[in-house]
Amino acid sequence: MVVKLFGASFSGHTLRVAMVMQEYNVPFELIKVDMVQGEHQSDAYLNNHPFGQVPYIDDDGFILYESRAISWYIATKYRDNIKAPLLPDMYKDTKKYAIFEQAASVNECHWERYTTKMVRQLLIEPMFDNEPDERVVEESLQCLNNTFDVYDRILSRQKYLAGDVSTIKVGAEIDSVANGAFQDFTLVDIFHLHTFHVFSSKALISTEGRPNVERYDFSSA
Amino acid sequence: MVVKLFGASFSGHTLRVAMVMQEYNVPFELIKVDMVQGEHQSDAYLNNHPFGQVPYIDDDGFILYESRAISWYIATKYRDNIKAPLLPDMYKDTKKYAIFEQAASVNECHWERYTTKMVRQLLIEPMFDNEPDERVVEESLQCLNNTFDVYDRILSRQKYLAGDVSTIKVGAEIDSVANGAFQDFTLVDIFHLHTFHVFSSKALISTEGRPNVERYDFSSA
Repeated sequence: MVVKLFGASFSGHTLRVAMVMQEYNVPFELIKVDMVQGEHQSDAYLNNHPFGQVPYIDDDGFILYESRAISWYIATKYRDNIKAPLLPDMYKDTKKYAIFEQAASVNECHWERYTTKMVRQLLIEPMFDNEPDERVVEESLQCLNNTFDVYDRILSRQKYLAGDVSTIKVGAEIDSVANGAFQDFTLVDIFHLHTFHVFSSKALISTEGRPNVERYDFSSA
Repeated sequence: MVVKLFGASFSGHTLRVAMVMQEYNVPFELIKVDMVQGEHQSDAYLNNHPFGQVPYIDDDGFILYESRAISWYIATKYRDNIKAPLLPDMYKDTKKYAIFEQAASVNECHWERYTTKMVRQLLIEPMFDNEPDERVVEESLQCLNNTFDVYDRILSRQKYLAGDVSTIKVGAEIDSVANGAFQDFTLVDIFHLHTFHVFSSKALISTEGRPNVERYDFSSA
């Protein structure tokens, strides 16, 4: 039975889970939730996702929401499907796992917190015929620019956001992480992909003057 | 060598780490960071915590920031110090760990995201002689009230936020989680403690009409 992914094609969090399942070669079926019609606020939906958001998964009866938790679950359950694990082993390499959790927390608190707001204003509100709140967009952009400055500092010392300095692999080709070329590439890097591209392609955030983020931005690889 | 905890006594995130270390019987030394004097923005500090926040730890030369990542690290490294682990085993019980990660993500996205803003406005800004932004306080309160409604629904089905329905232990005394009485009590529950108390004691958020959150609020236990 394939994993059922309840989500929306415009949702970065749905895309995040889809990307992780693709990396781990997990067959899944996308079941679209009609958010414009308010399906995510129905009692039936709230019974599976009490916050009324997307996505959630149904893995043979096991219901799970929150895109990062789903990614952990896929990376743990299907860890043998992939050559280079995207999640360090918590017990065998406690420090490496701690660094990974540090980067995951940074992703959530210094990146997603603001991109979520921007996506809401620039994408979701217009779907409901509402005007974007320019103040929120402006404040979020400022925070994201601050984060980019710190990312540039972090990436000046290591190749990936949760990467270990001592195992830098310069010049590796971007193709798929599953082939094992990226020893320090983790779920955290995947967590950034769907929004890095959107914001840089729309020129909302510039990598100019941030050479290490520019290198990290896979569109230039 | 005891773990050095660089933080501030008014910081909930510092308190969170201190509580986890106490639960795991890990000796630590609190080294106060003088944030009013801007110590957290000095080059020396940013070298250890690039975002210029508190807390971070120095465990015999291993530097780690982000309070949740530090909690993971303590719970993993010192897992034998405690009878009832606060972190489920990722590989032995993949689904339980996934539920834990789900609750940790909810804590970050639906709770901390707003409490952090309120603490900033009500506690930090006045330290720098700035007026709190009432609009931010009001918006955050509204979001926290929504979260409380969902928490009440979640807690109507299970005892703790990452708890398993099938192992509910009703009427257990709150004393210390380390004694093993709380099989479903996890780091996620500790993550809420420092702010649940602050906000309910200041009557900023009411548990009225939310009987399951009321039960969860340890001050009434």
